[in-house]
Amino acid sequence: MKGTTLGLAVALAVGLSSHGASPSVPGRGPRFTADGALLQPADFRDWVLAGASLGLTYSKPGPLSGIGVFHNVYIDPQSLAAFRRDGRFPEGTTLVMELFSPGEKADPALGGYFEAESVGVEAAVKDSARFAGGWAYFSFGDGSLKSARPIASGSCAECHRRHAATDNVFTQFYPTLRRPR
Amino acid sequence: MKGTTLGLAVALAVGLSSHGASPSVPGRGPRFTADGALLQPADFRDWVLAGASLGLTYSKPGPLSGIGVFHNVYIDPQSLAAFRRDGRFPEGTTLVMELFSPGEKADPALGGYFEAESVGVEAAVKDSARFAGGWAYFSFGDGSLKSARPIASGSCAECHRRHAATDNVFTQFYPTLRRPR
Repeated sequence: MKGTTLGLAVALAVGLSSHGASPSVPGRGPRFTADGALLQPADFRDWVLAGASLGLTYSKPGPLSGIGVFHNVYIDPQSLAAFRRDGRFPEGTTLVMELFSPGEKADPALGGYFEAESVGVEAAVKDSARFAGGWAYFSFGDGSLKSARPIASGSCAECHRRHAATDNVFTQFYPTLRRPR
Repeated sequence: MKGTTLGLAVALAVGLSSHGASPSVPGRGPRFTADGALLQPADFRDWVLAGASLGLTYSKPGPLSGIGVFHNVYIDPQSLAAFRRDGRFPEGTTLVMELFSPGEKADPALGGYFEAESVGVEAAVKDSARFAGGWAYFSFGDGSLKSARPIASGSCAECHRRHAATDNVFTQFYPTLRRPR
């Protein structure tokens, strides 16, 4: 049965490749415009989830700020495979964060929060030849922007450099990047 | 540059296929033991995230119940591709839910919750030939169980049948399954 399953899996993979469907070609490395803007990856929601969080904030939340927003952080599969293999993020590593407003306890749930509307898309890219410090950070606004220039050095990079557990990535918050394989 | 990128992507896809690495062979359909227990999918964390939630509960939360746990729901990529194509979940559709305890505002975050420890793994499988009503539900306990028999009809199935928006799946809570492609 295992042989049959493997055969089917290979057949599926070949079939998907020949059709160019995204599942078999996940992550293609970051793509930039001629003037250095990052193109928003089209298929990041099909990448691997690094981790989700709700309301993580770097400023003290006020009494009226509510529960905050969901953050889903995805990593491109090729870079994740390399990270799992040798514990380092390769050049080209791309992490995309999508933000969702919290929906509250819709029927039949009687408590809790789910991901309602997408309200933002951001990205981090490792490219040591292109960016001083190795990484750059990008905001695609509410997600509708197709490209984005790096956010000015300092605002994001400094905090990531000082507080992120692994090479400017907040692996301490992401189970997929924390757990051994 | 686009041609080069595409060529690289194809080379990567072929390379991954020939090595049998999981990114290019995601989802292999549910596998059962001879006596009908579902084998826990080995690679579900590499599937596509349907959606995350925090503290969703079907019983009224008490004052001491805290914020609750995170739920990450993943869908096997082949079934997702079919669902995106024709709006229906094909036979063999497998959804896996992993539960995480909430970690709270670790430095440098000053508020909010991230996914701390994995505390449970559950699954839903559509197989109309095998299960009355089409779907069955499984619990792998804290995630350490390698196989699980279907949960007795009624407890899960009835609520999913009555309240889930699309064919017993709570698509109303999952952005990946709600949004059009």
